Amino acid sequence: MKKIAISIGDLNGIGLEIALRAHEEIKTLCAPMYCVNETMLQWGAALLGLDVPMDFNTVECAEEFFEISPGVVSEKAGKASFDSFVTAVALAKSDNADAIVTLPINKEAWKQAGIVYKGHTDALSDMLGDEAIMMLGCDELFTILFTHHIPLKDVSEYVKTKALTRFLVKTYKSLLVENIAVLGLNPHAGDGGVIGDEEIKIAKAIKRANDELDKNVFFGPLVPDTAFAPKSLEKCSHFVCMYHDQGLIPLKALYFKESINVTLGLPLIRTSVDHGTAFDIAYKGKEPSTISYVNAVKEAVRLSEKPVLDF
Amino acid sequence: MKKIAISIGDLNGIGLEIALRAHEEIKTLCAPMYCVNETMLQWGAALLGLDVPMDFNTVECAEEFFEISPGVVSEKAGKASFDSFVTAVALAKSDNADAIVTLPINKEAWKQAGIVYKGHTDALSDMLGDEAIMMLGCDELFTILFTHHIPLKDVSEYVKTKALTRFLVKTYKSLLVENIAVLGLNPHAGDGGVIGDEEIKIAKAIKRANDELDKNVFFGPLVPDTAFAPKSLEKCSHFVCMYHDQGLIPLKALYFKESINVTLGLPLIRTSVDHGTAFDIAYKGKEPSTISYVNAVKEAVRLSEKPVLDF
Repeated sequence: MKKIAISIGDLNGIGLEIALRAHEEIKTLCAPMYCVNETMLQWGAALLGLDVPMDFNTVECAEEFFEISPGVVSEKAGKASFDSFVTAVALAKSDNADAIVTLPINKEAWKQAGIVYKGHTDALSDMLGDEAIMMLGCDELFTILFTHHIPLKDVSEYVKTKALTRFLVKTYKSLLVENIAVLGLNPHAGDGGVIGDEEIKIAKAIKRANDELDKNVFFGPLVPDTAFAPKSLEKCSHFVCMYHDQGLIPLKALYFKESINVTLGLPLIRTSVDHGTAFDIAYKGKEPSTISYVNAVKEAVRLSEKPVLDF
Repeated sequence: MKKIAISIGDLNGIGLEIALRAHEEIKTLCAPMYCVNETMLQWGAALLGLDVPMDFNTVECAEEFFEISPGVVSEKAGKASFDSFVTAVALAKSDNADAIVTLPINKEAWKQAGIVYKGHTDALSDMLGDEAIMMLGCDELFTILFTHHIPLKDVSEYVKTKALTRFLVKTYKSLLVENIAVLGLNPHAGDGGVIGDEEIKIAKAIKRANDELDKNVFFGPLVPDTAFAPKSLEKCSHFVCMYHDQGLIPLKALYFKESINVTLGLPLIRTSVDHGTAFDIAYKGKEPSTISYVNAVKEAVRLSEKPVLDF
């Protein structure tokens, strides 16, 4: 069974409750290693009115003790969540875990704790010295973002044949999925060049990536507005999107609850829930959904079972 | 009962079959006036193996007779579909009909027939000398497109406070819907100006439009990626989108079959099915879906029942 290091997230949020409630299911999928201080775990479980299962294996983190304050942004909770994350990364880097799954942190709490990173993906790119690829979704639909947090008007400048070819090849080698759609950029995918011409570069990149891989993995550029319609999703589940909202609008419209966040293209495998700390419902007996977390663990296991290729 | 002029579309396509099959339902919604030559109607119905209902009221068009050739692009069918459309427009302009509903034409057939317009919306804007507003959707979700067939990289230039304010006011007066969302342009709606700043102009336009209307119709700018998630759609059904795919990607992902096309902002009301002539299944006994057509008639009736305001 694959060993998955679980970064527990902000203890003032819903992460611990999700980990405890989902444990019976998670242990059928993998051998989870929960990165959380044993005392903090017992404290949190007591607050939640939940028992800690006998086989809830923890890995000690360098965290201090602090009082759990449900729904509160705090420096100490920020520090503890960062320690848990760093512990999980260290386990994976030293081959003591096959992948890591992260529960949600609070970005403001990280800031208060003096942590320079904006979030997990940012921290991982820096720690591992390589550019991460963001993929979000679930089994029915995964969207892979070629560009993400840039102004919409700048997207066109980034759509270059060479950069996109490299991105596609790296995406394939990270995923080993044999059928991946690539979207166009413009309405009607440019309608033969009448409404923009970036699709020419996209088509070239698709051809070059397939040539380099010596098989037809990628197809497109697809007309964006019909790419996520039912008939299209029957044929394909992985879509390379040119910009943030081209992928995330349909994903959140169709699969808001099921979605996970996957970091590809790095020398370790990391998946994450695609929701936040939900401070408003933490420790309130409102049973947060565990769907995204369970899906994140499943994808971490799947990715750690595939052969590793050099990028 | 409202009188709705039905433009029958390309007779080599599925329009006539949809009109015949849906008639029993349509006549409960409005008094339909079918713009089709009586002989062509009888001929088409015979080919389809369908009876023409006794109360299937037709309005003669200036069309020639020609042999119906299922699934074939033809000059004569193009000419006949244009005649049907012009007849419907004339009925509405002369107040002999309250609105028009168009069944699909074939753009290539229009071209072969020497018709200079690319499609219905283009023709209407020209005939009526005003700029049309495109709205697509169904009761659950209507998307109103601020820009449509332009390259993605040019969208930002169009997002100006004055033009958007005018567009919003005209949209409200055409629709009389009291709660309309307006989307941001950038990922996370700019994240406070960190990822683009067009949202400042959008926010100003929302405020100015509400001030001019003296009520809070418009709200936003919404974060695009969560705007079409289930919780957001519970609160609102009409969304002004900054660009083509921002509106059409979620619409086609969620409501591909139900969607209709509505032309707003003109001195006549026109709705349309949101699908094509489906030449591949025309006259083949494959019963095309009538959902989009029925929805188009319902919306035409709803819009013609509301008070008329000057733009």
